[in-house]
Amino acid sequence: MAAEEAAVRAQAEAVRRLKQDKADPDEIAKEVVKLLEMKAQLGGDEGKHKFVLKTPKGTRDYSPKQMAIRERVFNAIITCFKRHGAEVIDTPVFELKETLTGKYGEDSKLIYDLKDQGGELLSLRYDLTVPFARYLAMNKITNIKRYHIAKVYRRDNPAMTRGRYREFYQCDFDIAGQFDPMIPDAECLKIVHEILSDLQLGDFLIKVNDRRILDGMFAVCGVPDSKFRTICSSVDKLDKMPWEEVRSEMVGEKGLSPEAADHIGEYVQLHGGLDLIEQLLQDPKLSQNKLAKEGLGDMKLLFEYLTLFGITGKISFDLSLARGLDYYTGVIFEAVLLQPENDHVEEPVSVGSVAGGGRYDGLVGMFDPKGRKVPCVGVSIGIERIFSILEQRVEASEEKIRTTETQVLVASAQKKLLEERLKLISELWNAGIKAEVLYKKNPKLLNQLQYCEDTGIPLVAIVGEQELKDGVVKLRVVATREEVNVRRESLVEEIRMRTSRP
Amino acid sequence: MAAEEAAVRAQAEAVRRLKQDKADPDEIAKEVVKLLEMKAQLGGDEGKHKFVLKTPKGTRDYSPKQMAIRERVFNAIITCFKRHGAEVIDTPVFELKETLTGKYGEDSKLIYDLKDQGGELLSLRYDLTVPFARYLAMNKITNIKRYHIAKVYRRDNPAMTRGRYREFYQCDFDIAGQFDPMIPDAECLKIVHEILSDLQLGDFLIKVNDRRILDGMFAVCGVPDSKFRTICSSVDKLDKMPWEEVRSEMVGEKGLSPEAADHIGEYVQLHGGLDLIEQLLQDPKLSQNKLAKEGLGDMKLLFEYLTLFGITGKISFDLSLARGLDYYTGVIFEAVLLQPENDHVEEPVSVGSVAGGGRYDGLVGMFDPKGRKVPCVGVSIGIERIFSILEQRVEASEEKIRTTETQVLVASAQKKLLEERLKLISELWNAGIKAEVLYKKNPKLLNQLQYCEDTGIPLVAIVGEQELKDGVVKLRVVATREEVNVRRESLVEEIRMRTSRP
Repeated sequence: MAAEEAAVRAQAEAVRRLKQDKADPDEIAKEVVKLLEMKAQLGGDEGKHKFVLKTPKGTRDYSPKQMAIRERVFNAIITCFKRHGAEVIDTPVFELKETLTGKYGEDSKLIYDLKDQGGELLSLRYDLTVPFARYLAMNKITNIKRYHIAKVYRRDNPAMTRGRYREFYQCDFDIAGQFDPMIPDAECLKIVHEILSDLQLGDFLIKVNDRRILDGMFAVCGVPDSKFRTICSSVDKLDKMPWEEVRSEMVGEKGLSPEAADHIGEYVQLHGGLDLIEQLLQDPKLSQNKLAKEGLGDMKLLFEYLTLFGITGKISFDLSLARGLDYYTGVIFEAVLLQPENDHVEEPVSVGSVAGGGRYDGLVGMFDPKGRKVPCVGVSIGIERIFSILEQRVEASEEKIRTTETQVLVASAQKKLLEERLKLISELWNAGIKAEVLYKKNPKLLNQLQYCEDTGIPLVAIVGEQELKDGVVKLRVVATREEVNVRRESLVEEIRMRTSRP
Repeated sequence: MAAEEAAVRAQAEAVRRLKQDKADPDEIAKEVVKLLEMKAQLGGDEGKHKFVLKTPKGTRDYSPKQMAIRERVFNAIITCFKRHGAEVIDTPVFELKETLTGKYGEDSKLIYDLKDQGGELLSLRYDLTVPFARYLAMNKITNIKRYHIAKVYRRDNPAMTRGRYREFYQCDFDIAGQFDPMIPDAECLKIVHEILSDLQLGDFLIKVNDRRILDGMFAVCGVPDSKFRTICSSVDKLDKMPWEEVRSEMVGEKGLSPEAADHIGEYVQLHGGLDLIEQLLQDPKLSQNKLAKEGLGDMKLLFEYLTLFGITGKISFDLSLARGLDYYTGVIFEAVLLQPENDHVEEPVSVGSVAGGGRYDGLVGMFDPKGRKVPCVGVSIGIERIFSILEQRVEASEEKIRTTETQVLVASAQKKLLEERLKLISELWNAGIKAEVLYKKNPKLLNQLQYCEDTGIPLVAIVGEQELKDGVVKLRVVATREEVNVRRESLVEEIRMRTSRP
């Protein structure tokens, strides 16, 4: 088959060349006919092709039921973002390859590149933060609060039962601009708190740290400047690996002195609240380090604002939190679910971080020709893991989820009433009523009622010979089987009244 | 720079190999240190990189203002799809390359392929119809009414002022299943009629034809079977080229006899309604052709249903309508705007087709291992052109579009009230009020009021020393400058009342 397809392609190319060279029309026509015959030959076999029927590795379709759950989650998140006054933007799914270069450290190998088909070299976006920074620099925007909900792409090893995919949604909220310290940062944490509370995912904890505190800590522990980032990557693994393994990576692979590693080991066990911040501000070594002092001062301010917001109960200042991405420059944070509510689920979902973010004051400057900086802080909600939990919960609860919003089925009790059904449903559609009709000339009433049961349509508008004569429609409530005759001119109002949510 | 980056990559590769070979840890450590130093060196120069600041060719960002317009259009379309009882699905942005192969005829060259990075060969979706058919076959679904709104990708020559992009949205509604003839087809046309009316884009016309009528016409005109498709492609160009050019393509390039071409030329000028259908059903040649007769019979039925829906005024049975895609098997249609309402616009937008679709009864079978068919009919709304028109209209009208939904700004009249502002806004957020605060410790009242003017926030809640003592908040209506003192416990209710839409 492939050989025949290649032959067709070669013939097509030959025709193209003849046309380009303005060859003799007769000669072109002859070759075109040959091409068409080859194509027809090939086309005739099409039905017999064997396809691999699947979505690409690490991706999935969403069924109507999954979409209904997904939209609930999106609604909760968008409602929160709008409550905080955010605008919304959108950017293309791919960027120039060089836009992404040098932003993701070791993870750059996970970027999807497009094939070079002539023209620009392109890559699928890896997150929404870098495109946002590119957008700000390109449009010289120095001040914006925006959200962006879109799919991003990572050639990672998928772990789909745990909600890790190669194509997945990110829901990002960011505040860009030069402001007084920690006010936008505190709002980001308030947003995470609101969303996780709204979604009722069970207990959660938001860990907070600051890159400056980490860097100060590395400095006072004797880590050479050039190793800050790589040691930071090691610390980032503490949520998945025990300290002993992380230590041996630092010492063995990354060439850190054992003393420095042990020193770090003492700090990274620390977590707490305002008390810990006060304690570290008195720490004889850290308090001497400029970066650490700055970070701790801001952390204190942050906690004061979080106290005003009444959310410190779920916030933990945690020195082991590092975050993988290169671009953070100040506060960083990550939300984890403490007790995923899945006691009643057969296969428990193991979920980790469901939201994360931080301050990245240098990223926009990387795109500006003059390096002008726009300070930014933002949060990204990890929707897929949340979705996995909610989906399993719905499965377990046997809750019936409607996948349409249809208010009424237009049905007939006798045969030969298709025209009347179409006339009535057209009236209803024009009045804004959500209505369906079975695509059958003569459907049985029982089948029409069954369709309502199956899909959760609450009302049936039944036309029959007698009703037509009387100028009425029989309205049946599916749940109670109650039936009333409604005058045709009152039908829209009656349906609206009976299906409006309280 | 590139050379240095290459050196770093080579060094990283060397380290990887040493680790893989479980080389001496000291040796590894030495090479790792070297790598880190090289990286640090490279990193230090990052700020000076020069980037090309643009989105890829044929793509664009959407600003908050554009998003506000886009969401209006989406809302109108989704509302209509839901009114007709559609469920919603989603599929990945890329498919296995072979899923798209052989579906788009000559346009296949416009498909974006991903780079082969090991693993499956992938392509970006070209439309939503083929992924839908793949979804049905893969999940053995024989009956569904769904919509799908998502971006698709075509490496076409962009004409962005006319709303033609390489990344663009499609809004698809399809009905799959074995039903009585032309009822779903008629509903698709009703949907196009409803959406174009709702959006108030000016006068429009929906052209309708049937692939069987076209094929029958080709047969009676003496076109050989093997040339049906390619001659159909030529006919499809009639909306952009005069008949003379199309004719010379048929005869010159495609080797059709001049007599056959002239014969076709007579048919393709015909357009009308039920009268034309009746006339063709009596046509001595067409009425002898089985395919044409079938198509004309169904076209008559379709017009009867469209009459019941009351929309024949904007429908034209047009024998010159051919549609480019290979997979159509029955009814095809296309909506065009007749008089784009742009008299008041400086640069008039030239728009063509804004919606199109048809019946494709064979596509799902191409994916089924046993070739089982699922008849489908659907419509795709071309959102980008519609969006271009509305955007220009908004620009011209100087209508002020709000890009946020914020109900109230929490402000202060004196200095040192940041804490009080944060406490109040937290109460408002927790009560579901959409509220903002300026991220300044001591903003001037004038600046706070100006922010409301600029962004359209209708209310300001002002805290001051006196108000705090009295347990009230001063609520100011931005438009009228009216100010009232509201007791703190009534504030939420007062804001809700004053910002609820009538």
